[in-house]
Amino acid sequence: MRPLDALVNALPEGRVLTDPDVIDSYARDRTFLEPGKPLAAVLATSRDDVVTTLKWATEHRVPVVPRGGGTGLAGAATAGDGAVILSLARMTAIRELSPADEIAVVEPGVITADLDRAAREHGLMYAPDPSSYEISTIGGNLATNAGGLRCVKYGVTRDSALGLEVVLADGRILQTGRRTMKGVTGYDLTGLFVGSEGTLGVITAATVRLRRAPAAPPATFAAEFGSLREAGAAVSAIMAAGCQPSLMELLDRATLEAIDDWRNIGLEPGTMAMLIGQSDASDGEAVVKRMEQLCVDNGSPFVAVSSSPQETEELIGLRRMAYDAKERLGACLVEDVCVPRSVLPDMIMAIEAAAVRHGVKIATVAHAGDGNLHPVFIFEHGTAEPPPEVWAAADDVFTHALQLGGTLTGEHGVGLLKRRWLALETGPVAQEMQQGIKAVFDPLGLLNPGKAI
Amino acid sequence: MRPLDALVNALPEGRVLTDPDVIDSYARDRTFLEPGKPLAAVLATSRDDVVTTLKWATEHRVPVVPRGGGTGLAGAATAGDGAVILSLARMTAIRELSPADEIAVVEPGVITADLDRAAREHGLMYAPDPSSYEISTIGGNLATNAGGLRCVKYGVTRDSALGLEVVLADGRILQTGRRTMKGVTGYDLTGLFVGSEGTLGVITAATVRLRRAPAAPPATFAAEFGSLREAGAAVSAIMAAGCQPSLMELLDRATLEAIDDWRNIGLEPGTMAMLIGQSDASDGEAVVKRMEQLCVDNGSPFVAVSSSPQETEELIGLRRMAYDAKERLGACLVEDVCVPRSVLPDMIMAIEAAAVRHGVKIATVAHAGDGNLHPVFIFEHGTAEPPPEVWAAADDVFTHALQLGGTLTGEHGVGLLKRRWLALETGPVAQEMQQGIKAVFDPLGLLNPGKAI
Repeated sequence: MRPLDALVNALPEGRVLTDPDVIDSYARDRTFLEPGKPLAAVLATSRDDVVTTLKWATEHRVPVVPRGGGTGLAGAATAGDGAVILSLARMTAIRELSPADEIAVVEPGVITADLDRAAREHGLMYAPDPSSYEISTIGGNLATNAGGLRCVKYGVTRDSALGLEVVLADGRILQTGRRTMKGVTGYDLTGLFVGSEGTLGVITAATVRLRRAPAAPPATFAAEFGSLREAGAAVSAIMAAGCQPSLMELLDRATLEAIDDWRNIGLEPGTMAMLIGQSDASDGEAVVKRMEQLCVDNGSPFVAVSSSPQETEELIGLRRMAYDAKERLGACLVEDVCVPRSVLPDMIMAIEAAAVRHGVKIATVAHAGDGNLHPVFIFEHGTAEPPPEVWAAADDVFTHALQLGGTLTGEHGVGLLKRRWLALETGPVAQEMQQGIKAVFDPLGLLNPGKAI
Repeated sequence: MRPLDALVNALPEGRVLTDPDVIDSYARDRTFLEPGKPLAAVLATSRDDVVTTLKWATEHRVPVVPRGGGTGLAGAATAGDGAVILSLARMTAIRELSPADEIAVVEPGVITADLDRAAREHGLMYAPDPSSYEISTIGGNLATNAGGLRCVKYGVTRDSALGLEVVLADGRILQTGRRTMKGVTGYDLTGLFVGSEGTLGVITAATVRLRRAPAAPPATFAAEFGSLREAGAAVSAIMAAGCQPSLMELLDRATLEAIDDWRNIGLEPGTMAMLIGQSDASDGEAVVKRMEQLCVDNGSPFVAVSSSPQETEELIGLRRMAYDAKERLGACLVEDVCVPRSVLPDMIMAIEAAAVRHGVKIATVAHAGDGNLHPVFIFEHGTAEPPPEVWAAADDVFTHALQLGGTLTGEHGVGLLKRRWLALETGPVAQEMQQGIKAVFDPLGLLNPGKAI
């Protein structure tokens, strides 16, 4: 019997897909990366399916690539030759939702926004909201330690993860963490798994923290600026004033042009940047007034403050359409550097300099309150790989981010795309320790080989 | 040359103490645990001293017990026979404090409250505030992932740790984490070190997150209750109403009696519990009014709302004197269970039942907003170990906490004291993985052997 037949026989009917064309759609994430030729895709519907698959993989030494919604931007879910893809997207149960304890226990295939909506029925929310939250899964969010727009106030996915149920490569079950708000029993294995991109084990359930949802919709403004430096100064002033925005997004001229080109938003010639901010505090309107004033103080000629939910939707919609607007212009390499907040304008200017130096189109949006920038490198559709000048410009950007005390990736992860710069940031001792940890959990190196570390 | 002479020679003059009586005072924490006979105590003043000590320890296979302020409550800094104590208390530099980026880079010997005061000069604060924060060190807080009173709103020490400089057992330097608010490059080694009780490496610097300090002093109330269940219901109601208290402490009758016995606070016969709460929000007085009403709604016959900083000091002072008041009554075993918030009253009643069943005096204070309880078992001074009935009662308490979905330790750590219950909570697979991680960082098992895991 071929090894794959043993897997098909061990799992319930219909779990294993082997048609190469069908498998190919499970072998990709949202990057341009071309996958290899995986052996099969398993659509797990239960922890037992995961255990069966991993025991089989260990027995036959087959690499396993776990995946959620496939919305990743770093290639962490890209599957190579001979691998078995393990999709968790069908494990969609919200096992428990406790309003009194403000926690939920969810399976990895739950769509992020669905958990948020379920929580809101009880006056709660699930705070992490990556841009893809209508199509991303909690499992994928945990694997990449996803950020999002609200994390400037509420933290990233790791800050909402209390405990995990994990299947190890050999099929054993590991429970990490707890159901309580605090706990220090042993090493923090929960935090270790969050962001490990499926290289240490497969998460089959997570206990996550919910938070009280604000009583009213957030108050919102959008401010135009004649220079990036002024916009950056406004961000610094807003954060320093203790405004605690629940969203603080910066769009550069190239991004605004891409949006204007598509939807005709009446972009003024002198507008070089736009800042969109929200406060979900109980006195949110007053806070937005203060933020508006700080934008004016820092040179903004025009600030729009929303006076209705529809207007708010329009302002936030500008931010939401940024990526799609850029995809109209070409293939996209979406990057994700994060720098200390005070050097945000320096980083944006370094990105612009890299674009000019290498003759590359780069359009940047930033989670400005966190110093997290997404420069999007736009190149011609139809090329399998970004052309050399794009990589050269990206190299400039990464190097500059590290020089400014920043990091290669704020929230997207390392995946395959950032491995070649990894050593620059982590250094040899940390790399050796990370490889050592990997070997503890996955001694045969079967789980998502070549990713994350 | 004896091994110890080699260490004395390798370090600058005066770093190594060898007088047994002097060493003994460095071999203890704040528990009743009797240390062994350590070989020496090194008072490190620089990273180089730490490197020299650990290289020597590796060469000569000598166990090393790192320590900060010695305020631990679990025995993590208790030193055994033949060990070298490595005190970081003299590494007290705040290397950097950046108001713009809201971060500080500090050495491990910095006193927690000193960092907070330095931050407040810039309108910022260092949020974690364990009760011992006037005498505890940042290094000790990191080693135990210390909590505190404010963590109900601002999170525990791990939530403020961005990056670490660590000396490994073999003397190599490991840099973890970052200076940015977000980052997902590789596994979360920072989070792994926080709470590892010095068993993986010795922290010689930490990059920590600061936060905007509230503009005004917090608004404060204290409510009396005729039953613990009513007090627990008030806590649930306050949290469910989204009040976001910055402090929410519960004192039981036994604690109030101990305080009354000492300071004569006019305790009424029917008062079975007291709840002390604060809000540091910009509309804090309005929030405290809502919390007051929720206490009344849940049966409180009397709520005092502070009208001056002096009154606030008095109310908070009641909580602060709880531990000293108990120490007057006897030797103390301070425990630290944490349960889901909704079962806080059940846990308190289980503690009271254990006290009656085993004829033991237990007085409990709780960080009620977090479900984190400190039952203090009081027994006769002069016994080296708590008597068997105290351990039997503690065993009841731990078992009950785990049955309620809780954890053995919310913020004090495992140290030596909680090792015998550890397997009940973590299970064999997690224990095996933790031992594996330990072996990656400290293959000879020299760092704080027998602690934490």
